[in-house]
Amino acid sequence: MTDTIHGALVLFSGGQDSSVCLAWALQRYTRVETVGFDYGQRHAVELEARRVLREGLQRRFPMWAVRLGGDHMLDIKGFGAIGDTALTAERAIEITEKGLPSTYVPGRNLVFLTYAAALADRLGLKALVGGMCETDFSGYPDCRRRTMDAMETALELGMERAFPIKTPLMRLSKAETWALAKGLGGDELIELIRRDSHTCYLGQRDVEHDWGFGCGACPACELRANGWRDWVSAGRPALAPS
Amino acid sequence: MTDTIHGALVLFSGGQDSSVCLAWALQRYTRVETVGFDYGQRHAVELEARRVLREGLQRRFPMWAVRLGGDHMLDIKGFGAIGDTALTAERAIEITEKGLPSTYVPGRNLVFLTYAAALADRLGLKALVGGMCETDFSGYPDCRRRTMDAMETALELGMERAFPIKTPLMRLSKAETWALAKGLGGDELIELIRRDSHTCYLGQRDVEHDWGFGCGACPACELRANGWRDWVSAGRPALAPS
Repeated sequence: MTDTIHGALVLFSGGQDSSVCLAWALQRYTRVETVGFDYGQRHAVELEARRVLREGLQRRFPMWAVRLGGDHMLDIKGFGAIGDTALTAERAIEITEKGLPSTYVPGRNLVFLTYAAALADRLGLKALVGGMCETDFSGYPDCRRRTMDAMETALELGMERAFPIKTPLMRLSKAETWALAKGLGGDELIELIRRDSHTCYLGQRDVEHDWGFGCGACPACELRANGWRDWVSAGRPALAPS
Repeated sequence: MTDTIHGALVLFSGGQDSSVCLAWALQRYTRVETVGFDYGQRHAVELEARRVLREGLQRRFPMWAVRLGGDHMLDIKGFGAIGDTALTAERAIEITEKGLPSTYVPGRNLVFLTYAAALADRLGLKALVGGMCETDFSGYPDCRRRTMDAMETALELGMERAFPIKTPLMRLSKAETWALAKGLGGDELIELIRRDSHTCYLGQRDVEHDWGFGCGACPACELRANGWRDWVSAGRPALAPS
């Protein structure tokens, strides 16, 4: 590998987790680009969140603005379509037993990482950064660090260069993710992510809560609200990036 | 894993290699389905080859016809589009040094396998079968068996079930691939694959050669013609499937 390959490509959805990852990467790497995935289930509101967040980071954090490069959107609608493939009754029962929703398409993160690696290779970027987290692992095996390690090996063998997969949130609770955001960019970053990142499954942004915008009732809003409450209860601590 | 997960999903492009793989799978598994990938570079002639070959196998090999199930086509045009992404000068030089064409998108087989695994999971199929081959490994690291082994691990961890990746051609020369076809289905299978499988990069089917249809000049035609000639020179031997 030549010295020209450096910097990081951040898997960036516009959600809370990947926004913190983007800030983490901007503090660590001198060159950062972002990639999003269109798998046919995106709300326009998420795409808008990506744009607003990138602009907010550039405007409020001048030392990061010079490091932030292009944004890319990759089409993986064909992968989302696999979810519509007839599900055998036996398989549906298995999925239910594992506690996964029947709309779940397994291995989504493997697809994200393979596409991201191919793009990073084109862009001359070295590391991949993603918000995978096994703390709130809810039956999604493709978020585990062990899976990331195996994927690093497969990518390195399959593409004949290393792609370190960095997962700064892997062992953090949702409250600790807020703490990391504070450690990275203080209350200014907290406010940016609180207000502009989007997590709600229903794509709702009409109602503002203390933890941000969303329906307040879907599992994603619930997780986010709980994490925020825990972080505030703990006195809004800051966690230094490792 | 329950007993309901059995059979195989064959990565089937309509080319010579994947046609032999399909025959191999039909002899080994009682339930076989096929999957193709549309990455925006397909000729209509390849899609037609897939249909003609599946029908030919069903018509001429009744014992296989009862085993052959559905055909699926997955859209990975978004992956092909990465190839259009601006290529840095440094990266272009690296690619040239590795002997890969600059249009090459690395890790294509990793994408094929991840999509295929997600589909196989939905269909209740156990094994993945592909024509990857390291004998004529021309700088494509994602064809090697070591890469397949790493991918097996990543898929198993990421999807929480085993996906054996079977690569019956991995160590065969192109001449030996014809020999395997003869071992699987005799001269009748040879003739079917010779006439109806499609390999030519230019999508040409106007001219018939002893080894099949194609322009006769592109690298794919050359490889196919050489393999056929070697196999014929050796007395058209048959190789028993292992």
